Amino acid sequence: MPTHEAARLRKVRLGLIGGGPGSNIGPAHRYAALLDGRYALLTGVFSSDPERSRAFAAELGIAGDRRYGRWQEMLEAEAHREDGVEVISIMTPNRSHYPIAKACLEQGFDVICDKPLTTTLEEALDLLQLSRSRGLICAVTYNYSGYPMVRQAREMVRRGELGNIRIVQVEHASGWASTLLEATGHKQATWRTTPEMVGKSSVVADLGTHAHHLLRFITGLEVVELSAELATLVPGRQVDDNAHIKLRLSNGARGFLWASMAATGHLHGLRIRVYGEDASLEWVQERPEELIVRPLNDPQQILMRGFEWLAPSAQRSSRLWPGHPEGFLEAFANLYNDIAEAILARRSGQTAPKERLFPDVEDGVLGVQFIEAAVSSHLQQGNWVKASLDLLAANP
Amino acid sequence: MPTHEAARLRKVRLGLIGGGPGSNIGPAHRYAALLDGRYALLTGVFSSDPERSRAFAAELGIAGDRRYGRWQEMLEAEAHREDGVEVISIMTPNRSHYPIAKACLEQGFDVICDKPLTTTLEEALDLLQLSRSRGLICAVTYNYSGYPMVRQAREMVRRGELGNIRIVQVEHASGWASTLLEATGHKQATWRTTPEMVGKSSVVADLGTHAHHLLRFITGLEVVELSAELATLVPGRQVDDNAHIKLRLSNGARGFLWASMAATGHLHGLRIRVYGEDASLEWVQERPEELIVRPLNDPQQILMRGFEWLAPSAQRSSRLWPGHPEGFLEAFANLYNDIAEAILARRSGQTAPKERLFPDVEDGVLGVQFIEAAVSSHLQQGNWVKASLDLLAANP
Amino acid sequence: MPTHEAARLRKVRLGLIGGGPGSNIGPAHRYAALLDGRYALLTGVFSSDPERSRAFAAELGIAGDRRYGRWQEMLEAEAHREDGVEVISIMTPNRSHYPIAKACLEQGFDVICDKPLTTTLEEALDLLQLSRSRGLICAVTYNYSGYPMVRQAREMVRRGELGNIRIVQVEHASGWASTLLEATGHKQATWRTTPEMVGKSSVVADLGTHAHHLLRFITGLEVVELSAELATLVPGRQVDDNAHIKLRLSNGARGFLWASMAATGHLHGLRIRVYGEDASLEWVQERPEELIVRPLNDPQQILMRGFEWLAPSAQRSSRLWPGHPEGFLEAFANLYNDIAEAILARRSGQTAPKERLFPDVEDGVLGVQFIEAAVSSHLQQGNWVKASLDLLAANP
Amino acid sequence: MPTHEAARLRKVRLGLIGGGPGSNIGPAHRYAALLDGRYALLTGVFSSDPERSRAFAAELGIAGDRRYGRWQEMLEAEAHREDGVEVISIMTPNRSHYPIAKACLEQGFDVICDKPLTTTLEEALDLLQLSRSRGLICAVTYNYSGYPMVRQAREMVRRGELGNIRIVQVEHASGWASTLLEATGHKQATWRTTPEMVGKSSVVADLGTHAHHLLRFITGLEVVELSAELATLVPGRQVDDNAHIKLRLSNGARGFLWASMAATGHLHGLRIRVYGEDASLEWVQERPEELIVRPLNDPQQILMRGFEWLAPSAQRSSRLWPGHPEGFLEAFANLYNDIAEAILARRSGQTAPKERLFPDVEDGVLGVQFIEAAVSSHLQQGNWVKASLDLLAANP
Repeated sequence: MPTHEAARLRKVRLGLIGGGPGSNIGPAHRYAALLDGRYALLTGVFSSDPERSRAFAAELGIAGDRRYGRWQEMLEAEAHREDGVEVISIMTPNRSHYPIAKACLEQGFDVICDKPLTTTLEEALDLLQLSRSRGLICAVTYNYSGYPMVRQAREMVRRGELGNIRIVQVEHASGWASTLLEATGHKQATWRTTPEMVGKSSVVADLGTHAHHLLRFITGLEVVELSAELATLVPGRQVDDNAHIKLRLSNGARGFLWASMAATGHLHGLRIRVYGEDASLEWVQERPEELIVRPLNDPQQILMRGFEWLAPSAQRSSRLWPGHPEGFLEAFANLYNDIAEAILARRSGQTAPKERLFPDVEDGVLGVQFIEAAVSSHLQQGNWVKASLDLLAANP
Repeated sequence: MPTHEAARLRKVRLGLIGGGPGSNIGPAHRYAALLDGRYALLTGVFSSDPERSRAFAAELGIAGDRRYGRWQEMLEAEAHREDGVEVISIMTPNRSHYPIAKACLEQGFDVICDKPLTTTLEEALDLLQLSRSRGLICAVTYNYSGYPMVRQAREMVRRGELGNIRIVQVEHASGWASTLLEATGHKQATWRTTPEMVGKSSVVADLGTHAHHLLRFITGLEVVELSAELATLVPGRQVDDNAHIKLRLSNGARGFLWASMAATGHLHGLRIRVYGEDASLEWVQERPEELIVRPLNDPQQILMRGFEWLAPSAQRSSRLWPGHPEGFLEAFANLYNDIAEAILARRSGQTAPKERLFPDVEDGVLGVQFIEAAVSSHLQQGNWVKASLDLLAANP
Repeated sequence: MPTHEAARLRKVRLGLIGGGPGSNIGPAHRYAALLDGRYALLTGVFSSDPERSRAFAAELGIAGDRRYGRWQEMLEAEAHREDGVEVISIMTPNRSHYPIAKACLEQGFDVICDKPLTTTLEEALDLLQLSRSRGLICAVTYNYSGYPMVRQAREMVRRGELGNIRIVQVEHASGWASTLLEATGHKQATWRTTPEMVGKSSVVADLGTHAHHLLRFITGLEVVELSAELATLVPGRQVDDNAHIKLRLSNGARGFLWASMAATGHLHGLRIRVYGEDASLEWVQERPEELIVRPLNDPQQILMRGFEWLAPSAQRSSRLWPGHPEGFLEAFANLYNDIAEAILARRSGQTAPKERLFPDVEDGVLGVQFIEAAVSSHLQQGNWVKASLDLLAANP
Repeated sequence: MPTHEAARLRKVRLGLIGGGPGSNIGPAHRYAALLDGRYALLTGVFSSDPERSRAFAAELGIAGDRRYGRWQEMLEAEAHREDGVEVISIMTPNRSHYPIAKACLEQGFDVICDKPLTTTLEEALDLLQLSRSRGLICAVTYNYSGYPMVRQAREMVRRGELGNIRIVQVEHASGWASTLLEATGHKQATWRTTPEMVGKSSVVADLGTHAHHLLRFITGLEVVELSAELATLVPGRQVDDNAHIKLRLSNGARGFLWASMAATGHLHGLRIRVYGEDASLEWVQERPEELIVRPLNDPQQILMRGFEWLAPSAQRSSRLWPGHPEGFLEAFANLYNDIAEAILARRSGQTAPKERLFPDVEDGVLGVQFIEAAVSSHLQQGNWVKASLDLLAANP
């Protein structure tokens, strides 16, 4: 959505928690929120050190009276301002997602939370109940669902262009931690390889959960059972860094998910292939403008972003003409934009758009459940473990 | 440059001329200027219709007292404000670049101008003299030079990693006007196919000039002679839509440039191949993260954006980790950022950085000269025409 | 090996069983055997119908007195001729491999047998004992190991260029039977989907076994345990058509093998990725001339067939200069050539070459064991099943 | 055409001239002739040294009484044998093509000659007259026209699937002689860089002529005028090694042809792109199984060899199923097979097949004319030079 269109709309008032100096994901969230002018960044707590946090807030141009030292202080103050922020975006280490999100929701803020939503299923279910009972948005940034060609893929599956889905192969196999990076003092590596900080699994919670959501987003199928083999492949590492997970999907299809941070030579390594009875499709995040479609009896096609014959959800997630590449930030911004739209609709009492494209608390809950099921299966030598569909039904 | 670093710097005060409702290039300029927070967009004239212009300014959030009806009015008013804009970015049809840029420079504004700089060499030389004599920046948005891997390519050539350059093959062959779009009322097509609006050549001025600059930017070589064949391939069209241009380069290398808007099935179609005695390289704008290098006796390599072993100019033009794709807007923003840096340095009396990476008025002059030489050669049945290197020397 | 070099060598006298009218694999074997002039095709039984067999033999130019009606008759007659064939190549349905190969070996012929070697492990072990005790060659046509760049990959792993291997992802996922082809009278489909003809598994025996051998050939690792999920995805089919198999390899590495004949839109779908601590590599059979290598901290490389810096085993399996594509038949011929060399060496009392590159009876035994283990695991709901390395040791 | 089908046909009796020890192209011709069993190689003269020639003939298994010392002797003897060869294939240095081909035709042999047919247009026209007057076949091995997907491309253009052709970009830009190989005693390099051996141009005669034929074969268009820039880019070389040639085609389309042996890092470097009003197509010899089609308003497609929906000429030039790569030898063999068919038809008094797919003497004449025109244009500083279509008409 080009700036000049977005400009007609009121900006959503945004506060941030986390993503301070040295963070990788912090700038991504800020770019994404600000790219199309849909949010006004008004406050934030960026560090557990109040001084560092305030200094960083100043750098970001945040007004002096809204440079808080602690997030609790921020919630308290903003909840009582006329012009207080409406939504809070959380990009802290996994273990703190739950207490922060819970406090935000309890104070009436909408929430945008990094994945995984929480580190236990109980916590996730609690956030589900809380956000539902308060009528608040609790979005989770499975950001790859923001790519236009991922949305095109989803729409093609939904329209039946692939026929009944039979096989899904998805992988998020990165090479970023193929060496014992954590021994070098690397901050991201420390976050993700210290057992106390990562929860029950590192690689499934960090990367596998993206792959799981991408599978669900595109195919509309759920994982009903899984059989997982977690492994630690880099000598000296204290958490798992590779996961091979066989899947049984809700329509009887078979799937396979590979998550790794030890895939030497890979960059980010997210890709998905979906096979239906009439066609298959393939999408590779590192070439995000292309969607490969392979029909049963016709030549392979490469669909490109930007064309008028794409699905509406793909078109409206696109800013530039074909051949002018968009990338990661634009996709992330699409998520933020969709969330802004939902927040504005809700706060102005309008009906939400029919189709919600951004991942919300239910996706977050299923994401956490998937991680737990993978760990559980692994601990049982790969036995098939249920990832029950009934969970959401039981928590309406 | 991530937001939080940029945030430490004063924002450059920016005004716009052109790029209003329905424009394609307008949003690109605005995204590029605003992406990294290096500019404050304070004013603009967006349409030749004062009412439409003011309405659009309002949509963009421009303050009421700076929503001018005509660009002359804007220059006058802003030149006298304490907080007046410092630089004006021009994105109007080609023929108006000259009078507007001239007026801007005469009033003391730095200028960012769309390509081609002007529609005659005389005009371009006038802007060269004017900007030099006033000590003002007059940048030209040959935006593809903002891609990190293009900058990497330039650095590799400069370091001698390819050895002496022997052949350059460059093409900007788009398929966007493979049909008689102008007969359908398509606004962009009308702009670019109405003889009075485009200058002496359409396709060379619109696309060929990008290819010409890319060749110069990467190789550091100049075109000393050319032999051109322009053609109108879409029946009913009134301007040229295809150009085949043989080149003789300043070190004796041979080159070929193909510009087209009638390359059916192509998207944007910008790519370059450079062959040296020791290696060759290839860059394709539609896969901008990749730089293919083919050494004489070793396996082909694919260099990717984001790695620490890339040239400094490539690294500092990069925001995201490898495997998280950046695209057109980020590259365009790199240009705007570099220009902001130069403006701030100049206005604060500092020395400019040693290496200027953004295209400026000299590049603009050579771009116009190239267009004129191509047309001249074509009118002489493809005779070799000089594109004299002495031109800049003669206009110091 | 170019014709003119091969021509210096005595041709190996060859007989065929199977591969008659309508066969796909028959012509492949004949092209492979004859391409480089290493074999003289002197006899064969091509059909279970003696008349059809003799007619086909005539078409192939086989002398009248060697057009036999039944294979038993051929073995008997050829064993007693001065100029009798030395080796017999078997390309019949899986179930008949064992009795034919057994008879051949018992009569003193060397054997080249299609994969899988047999349909039970007991049979395979019997052929192992028989060929060893007689000192005869019993090769198995895992033909993809004949590609030069596969041999290059093997050599690179062996030299330690990837460091310790950690992960292997291999797939042979074809789309050829994505519909219920067998219901249309399609001969190949009938062969491979009739339970009585295929043995215990269809897709693992037909395609998975190639993937398994490729993994072993390149990495030098063995599968020590596996966890398999077989499935029938095409409605109405009577055999499995998809297999997802997790692997534990002999050095502790993890692996995954996907075999399918229901991967809609795929062509042949054989590819392998091997990840070591220092680099990874990827090879895709449909672009067989390329070997992609991704080092830990350096740019990705694409090695191409035909260069002098490739491993000797890759160079001597290559006929043409770089850039002149070779394919499936040439790779298959490399296998036949290597077998010819071994036969000639043995029959002339020479020592065999140090490195045996062609798959032989031990590979065949391990292939059958892998199929049985996959079926066994599947029947136990995916429990980890040993694919014991001790098997060959126990049958010296 | 699989062996077993070909086997029903009488083999054509073949003799060779050239292609002896150390030759690159010799083995290619022999593989191509023998691959499908369409020829019986009965004699040949392989070297200007009679002893070497006879020794090589022995290695190839040629009968003792047909191992001739000189080609004149071979023609004389074979012309008088009952079972004398029917066709002679010539693979000697360019300058000797004419006298040998002339002698062959005069003695009543059909001829298969390497490209370029001759080194002067007069010679080529003489062979045209001679072969026409004698009713003999004089084929020229523009072997890339044997690729199935090239034939598919031709058929698609012919059927109008691209609409009127507007632009053709073709290149045969190899890197094989990017260094001064000839100074190292490299035999191929010496052949191709010694002015007395190569004729008027080296790179146009060696590589450009293939590109020229490929353009004509696929599009059905002729070059009516050209403007050429030849250059010597490798220091110390005595012949041209790079050619940039602008083309005007017979329907008014524009074209560009690049031939080089100094394109560092390239392998063989043959590719073509054809742009019509409705679609464009691209074929790259190093990925010969793929034909990329880019329709005006639909997604890009990749057509693969082997499918039933391909044009008949593509299907019958194919041996293997999709996904089982064929390559250079198979394409070369397709040419030989088509020539065999024509020879058998003529010699048995049958009508030739309606469509002749193999290049014959007319293509050879036009090839030589193209080389001469390129040299002529270059000597006139790139002036447009006619490559008259009337030539063949004037020599009916």
